[in-house]
Formats: sequence, structure tokens, C-alpha cells
Amino acid sequence: MGVKGLVSKGLLLACLVLPLSPALAEPARIPDTAMALAAELRKRALDSRLSYEIVESLTTEVGPRLPGSPGDAAAVAWAEAKLAALGFDRVWTEPVTIPAWERGQAHAHTTSPFPQPLHVTALGNSVPTPDGGLQAEVAFFPSLEALQAAPPDSLAGKVAYVGQRMWKTQDGSSYGAVVPMRSKGAAEAAKRGAVAVLIRSVGTDSRRFPHTGVMSYAEGVPRIPVAALSNPDADQLERLARYGKPVKVHLDLTPRTGPATQTRNVIAEIRGREKPEEIILIGAHLDSWDLGTGAVDDGAGVGVVTAAARLIRDLPQRPRRTIRVVLFAAEEIGLLGAKAYAAAHADELPRHMLATEADFGAGRVWRLETRFGPESLPLADRFMSALMPLGIAKGGNEAHGGPDIGPLRAAGVPVITLTQDGTDYFDLHHTADDTLDKIDPAALAQVTAAYAVAAYLAAEMEGNLRPAGE
Amino acid sequence: MGVKGLVSKGLLLACLVLPLSPALAEPARIPDTAMALAAELRKRALDSRLSYEIVESLTTEVGPRLPGSPGDAAAVAWAEAKLAALGFDRVWTEPVTIPAWERGQAHAHTTSPFPQPLHVTALGNSVPTPDGGLQAEVAFFPSLEALQAAPPDSLAGKVAYVGQRMWKTQDGSSYGAVVPMRSKGAAEAAKRGAVAVLIRSVGTDSRRFPHTGVMSYAEGVPRIPVAALSNPDADQLERLARYGKPVKVHLDLTPRTGPATQTRNVIAEIRGREKPEEIILIGAHLDSWDLGTGAVDDGAGVGVVTAAARLIRDLPQRPRRTIRVVLFAAEEIGLLGAKAYAAAHADELPRHMLATEADFGAGRVWRLETRFGPESLPLADRFMSALMPLGIAKGGNEAHGGPDIGPLRAAGVPVITLTQDGTDYFDLHHTADDTLDKIDPAALAQVTAAYAVAAYLAAEMEGNLRPAGE
Repeated sequence: MGVKGLVSKGLLLACLVLPLSPALAEPARIPDTAMALAAELRKRALDSRLSYEIVESLTTEVGPRLPGSPGDAAAVAWAEAKLAALGFDRVWTEPVTIPAWERGQAHAHTTSPFPQPLHVTALGNSVPTPDGGLQAEVAFFPSLEALQAAPPDSLAGKVAYVGQRMWKTQDGSSYGAVVPMRSKGAAEAAKRGAVAVLIRSVGTDSRRFPHTGVMSYAEGVPRIPVAALSNPDADQLERLARYGKPVKVHLDLTPRTGPATQTRNVIAEIRGREKPEEIILIGAHLDSWDLGTGAVDDGAGVGVVTAAARLIRDLPQRPRRTIRVVLFAAEEIGLLGAKAYAAAHADELPRHMLATEADFGAGRVWRLETRFGPESLPLADRFMSALMPLGIAKGGNEAHGGPDIGPLRAAGVPVITLTQDGTDYFDLHHTADDTLDKIDPAALAQVTAAYAVAAYLAAEMEGNLRPAGE
Repeated sequence: MGVKGLVSKGLLLACLVLPLSPALAEPARIPDTAMALAAELRKRALDSRLSYEIVESLTTEVGPRLPGSPGDAAAVAWAEAKLAALGFDRVWTEPVTIPAWERGQAHAHTTSPFPQPLHVTALGNSVPTPDGGLQAEVAFFPSLEALQAAPPDSLAGKVAYVGQRMWKTQDGSSYGAVVPMRSKGAAEAAKRGAVAVLIRSVGTDSRRFPHTGVMSYAEGVPRIPVAALSNPDADQLERLARYGKPVKVHLDLTPRTGPATQTRNVIAEIRGREKPEEIILIGAHLDSWDLGTGAVDDGAGVGVVTAAARLIRDLPQRPRRTIRVVLFAAEEIGLLGAKAYAAAHADELPRHMLATEADFGAGRVWRLETRFGPESLPLADRFMSALMPLGIAKGGNEAHGGPDIGPLRAAGVPVITLTQDGTDYFDLHHTADDTLDKIDPAALAQVTAAYAVAAYLAAEMEGNLRPAGE
């Protein structure tokens, strides 16, 4: 869309007549002219389908993009071409070294007390079962804590089942409470002699989709295969246990681990007009799990931050600082792109004036959280006056900024979180059902508007948001 | 549950004091004592979890039960044992000859313009693809009618895709409009030279589950393989077509057809106290598709009619007529159990005083439809006064009675339909996601109450509901 024509004459006039004078900017440190352009930007973003079109393009032309897979390489090529076509000033990639892992096939069924097929998928990083699969009795645990309380050797020759449930919350906070079952279950069960682990999916749906996700092994502990059951299949397994007879399962997983390989962070910039060396970073992750097409996780984020930057570029004047879009690689398997970015850009981090990531699906933004220095906190109110028309409320000053922003935050980069409604996010997360049809274009436009406005105001602000002492 | 103790003393007294005198019964032809017991039955049914427990038992102890499969044989054995344990007076089975068909594996992906995995499943009765699968360009049709308008030989060497959509309606009426795409698509495409067919799932969800269902071939037309795409995958295929380049798919289906085999209808009776030779038939089908555990289709119906009969048996007095529960075999592959029943019981059909089937999921009943003779229509009002407290409205006099009731209706047996809310039924229908967790026990108790009350009143009525002239 050619957007310049949309700017009202009055607004253009205001821009010309009101230079960025210290007198105007001082009280709130964001000039009124920038506030006016932010309102225009908000309107344009709400009227634009660009973020949706970007997710549509990514999920249709690339689809699944497991780090290190052909789809991942296709995604990097797609992103370079897309960012260049969208008119960013500079587009480049940076290498990220990653372990290679392929899912293979997953089959499971019970053999006692009744035969029932089970829908399972391997957790990321899992080793395979022996050739032809394994058959064993199931030992049932309601939670990781219960498994950890089992005596040494008590699971010899058994499959441990851990059945912790996740609950729907708007902020997705129950994920953090449950996810240790996924990441540590195999190690804890192996310590006690188990030959494999089945977990209830870390997900809030009751659909026959198992949820994958990364797990890790502990040093000095045997590596045993681990798979997730869909929630209805976990229910079935638990019902079978109530017959008071041994529950036996056959499990056949064929994932493969390969030698280390390489993928790439994809980075693009809209160069700042006054302080090009100072960076406002808006990120998302380009990789996805292989089961779905990575629409909600994190095609949505890729669409949002890319479109937000492009909408800023289309304003009548370049932003004062540089807007940098970072499409991180290999988030799903341990934030490897984020770590590589932070290492490669260590010298530059003091010039990162704000960072945030869109990686919580396609639901509307309902809250702004910040992590600013105390003397910069009044700026949050300036952000709020531009975000409130989007139905966004003010949150606290302990924002995390997003998974891939962790290393930057730890290095003192100020961050914000534009908290999205995640009530249904974990219905789809890491499943085959994460597909484009789950995204509401109107909601995605609201998210894009929020990111565009926040990034733009940060680019225009006078002063520094840095937390005290960092 | 021992139910006799629940009957209030007052009610028992009423039963003893008010014999079924013609004076009381004549105006409406259902005695007031029966109306009083129907109210008690309704209350007991709403308080009972029996129907849910029966579905739970069937889906946990048996699960998938494709006609002719080991699961189907296990279901017949389960049903005989369950009905005997529930105290029916007589339980027996009758043979049904069926073709044998197994699903095998299904894999599909596009190879052009972009590689994308597709979630597919074979339609019931489909032949396999050649060994190793087939690869071909896709010809797109929005509907069966559009396919039928294609010229002869215009699909030579191609895969025909038919993308008709189904819409949610409370009565499921859009199913009938769309299902010819599933049943006839292969024959119509083969006539025009196609090598295979892909259809959009006949289902109202947007989940990554393909919906199976039976199809048939036409005589003298080549038999080509046919599979359903999940709705999100159908969307994906249609998006790929919009790039204006040939869309090519690889399709690998390995179903197998075997020689004719046998399964069994399972039948059980509560014998009538006055007219044991007259039959009130309440049915459901015992078989299911193999992808899910057949909870909603039709474990729910099995639970409802079995529990309804048992609740009637537990009243202080046996019903006047015989209540016969028929768990039909092989409904999914062409109503084969229903046809076998009608043939085996041809002589007895004039003594079938009412027939109905529960085969529309686990949603609440919202309407009573009848097919009574004109002189018996006032009886529908007596039914209604006992059903209205369940939130049920009165419908017309052209009830179908249920899929397996067709042959009985055609033979003049009066039928009713207790129409259930099917708004969400076709989200799950014929998918892997048809599992127990989708059933609300409270809704199922309401359905059970409706069937129990209707069957009981039909058993107690004086007179004949038969449509005029039949």
C-alpha cells in the first residue's frame, strides 16, 4: 500500500511547523509531533492486512520449519526475500550453530488391560526407542514432584507416565508451572530405572493432538525416549489404570539426532534519521516446530514485527532511531538464535535502546509492561496514551520482553512486553493444529498497531529508558 | 443403582389405587398413572449417570470398532455381557454379512508450487493408490456439481480436488447437502479420467483432523482412490492454487478390501407385562469408524438407549409392551445391520408399535418429531406434556426416526425423532477426535430422560400409532 497519500494535509503541516524543539519535548520526552504521528500509525496499522499477509505467505510458501530442516533453510531464504521486497534499508543474516534433530515416526498403543491406540509424538531432543519399539508396564505419577518422590530403582523396566494438567489462563502463566514435567521428566524417570516416559501434553485443549516441545537430558543419567500423549489419550490411559490391572504400552519412536549444523538469524533495518546507531529491536522467531505450519507460533510474531517496521517506514519521516527487526533462529530448541545474536552484538548492546518480541500467538494485546529505569517511568504514560485507544491497559515495570529478549534484558537493554490474550494459545501450541485458519486478521492488526506505536515512540523519544545501574 | 427405593410412597399408592381403567385412559389413550410414572422416570434419568458410564465402558474397554475388525467383535462381546449384566430379560445376537475393509496408512504432500505435508485419510471403501503412491497435478472444483460439469477425459492423469464446504446448523441439515461429494466424487472424477480424488472433509471444524466416511463406486467406472483432507489442509491446497502454478500432490493410501465377513446385531429386551409380543424399539449403532473411539458416534446412542431401557425396567411395574434395545451393526458402511434386522424380523414388523434411534451425538434433545397416523396425533401432545419439562419443543409429523430406522419406517412402523442439538456434532464426526471427553454427562442424562420417557409412554399407550394406510 502506498501510504504517503493517506496522511492528512493538516498532519503534514503540523510536522513541518512543529520542529522537535526541546521546549515541546522536555516534559514527557516524546515530542507531540511524534504522538500525532503515532496516532496516524495506529490507524494505518488497524486498516492494514500486511501482518496477516506475511503470516499467510510464510505458512503457505514455507510451512513447517524445524531448526536445521529443509523448511528452516527455506524460511531463511523466504525471510531475506520478503524483507528486501518490503523495502527495508538493509537485510542480512548471521550464523547460528544448532544440534540437528528429526522427529521420525511415533506409534503407541496399550496392550493391557485393553488394546487402545494412543496419539503420541516425540519430545524435541528425545532419543529413539530400540528398533521395533519397546513394551513395558506403566507406572503412573500425577506430577513431576510425585515422580521425584519415587525411590531409586523403583521404575526398573517401566514406562513412567506423568499426568500433570495445564489450565487456561489469559497470561499463559500455567505453562511455566507445568513445563518442567516436559523438560526434566525423562531424566528424573531414568534416574529411577525407567525405560521410557510418556507425559500428558503441556496444552489446554482436549483435542487429539499431542503437543511437542523441547526436553533435555541430565549428565550421567541414561537417555531414555520420551513422548507426549494428547490430552484425550492421557485421559484414556488414566481410565485404563482404574481397572486395577497392569497397564502395558507398546511405544515406537524413531527420532534421529545428527551432527551440529547451522541456521541463520535474519535481520533487517529501517535506518534512523538522527541517531542511526541507536537501535529499537522488535523481534519474533522464524523457526517453528514441524507438526503444524507455525502460524500462531511464531508466524504471527514474524508478521507483526515485520509489518510494524514497514508501517513505520511508510510514515512521512524516517524514525529518529533505527528500527531493527530480528527474526531469531532456533528459538524452539533452546533460544539458540537469541544467544548467538547477543554474543555477536555484545559491543552494540549499550546502543539497544529498547527490545521486545512478539511470540505469544495472535490474540489481542491487553497490557503494556515495561522495564525502564525509574527516572524514565513517566515515559510509560506517554506510551499508554497512544496505546489505550487499542484497549490496552498499563501493567508493571518488570517486563520480560519475550523469550529471545532474555539475553538482551540480562545485559541491561530496556524492554517492554505487549501482553497478548493467551487464553487459547496453549490449545494450539506445538501441535499439528497450529495453522493459519486459527488467526483472526483483525486481532493481528491490533497487535501490529501496538508494536508499531510502541516501537515508533521509542525511536522518537528523547532520553534513555535504561534501568538504573545498567 | 437400586432404584425401587426411590419411588415415593405416594406414587406407589397412586399406582395401586388407580388401575389402568378404560375410563381414565380413553380421552388421551395414555393412562394418568403412566404419565405419573413417566414423570418419576424423567427425574430418575436426570439423576442417573448410567448412560455416561456405558459410553465410558465401551470407549475404554473397546474403543474403535470398524465393522469386521477385532474391535467390532470385541464390541459385540462387550454388548452381550453389558446387557446381560444390566438385567435385561433376554439378550441375543443376529448375523450381518458385511464387506471387509481396512484403512491402512495415508500420506500426502504437495510437491509444487511449495512442499507442504497434508493431513488426509482414506474414505471408507476406497481402493489403494499404486505401490509407492502416485503423483499428479490437481484439478480444482468448488463442488460436486462443478466436477460433474467437467467434460469427458478432461481430468486424464489428474487428481480431482472437490472443495465443497459444510456449515454448522443445529439440525445438521447441511450434511445431506454436502455428503454426495464424499459418496460420489470418485465415480464422477473417474468418468472424466482422474487417477485419484481428494475432497475437503465433510465437517464443520477447522481442526487438522480429516473426516472419513463411506463412499461407493459406480458400475463400469474405474475404481480410483479417494481421501479426505482436513479443513485446514483443504484451505492450504486452495491457497497453493492461487499462485497460478500447477499444484502437484503425492498421495499414498494403503487400504485393503477383504472377502465378505460377518458381524452381529446385538438385541436385548425388557419383556412387556400385558402385550409382550408388541415391541417398542429403541436403537443405536454399535459399530464406529476406526479413527476415534466412537464416543459421540455412536457410543452416546448406545449409552442412551441401553440406560433408558434399564431405567424403565427399574420402575415398580414392567412396561405394558416389550422394550427392545437394538444395537445395530455396520451402520457406518451402509446401514447393513438395519437392513439385516428388517429382513430377519419382517414378519414381526406389524407388531413394532414404535421405533426410534439415538444417533446424533451427545447434545441435548430440543424437539420431538413424530410420524403417527392422523387419528393418533393427539398422543403426541401426551408425549409433549412429559417431555416439555426437559426443554423439548413440539415438531412436525414427518419424523425419520434415525438412519437404522429407515427400513422399519418404510415398512409402516410408527417412528419418532428426539432431535438433538447437533451444532457441534460435525466438528467431531468420523474423526480421531471423537473421544469420551467430548460428552457432557448432564446433557447425556437429559437425552436419556427423553428416550426413557418416550419409550415408556409408547409402551403404556392404548391404541395404535400407525400411520394411516400402513
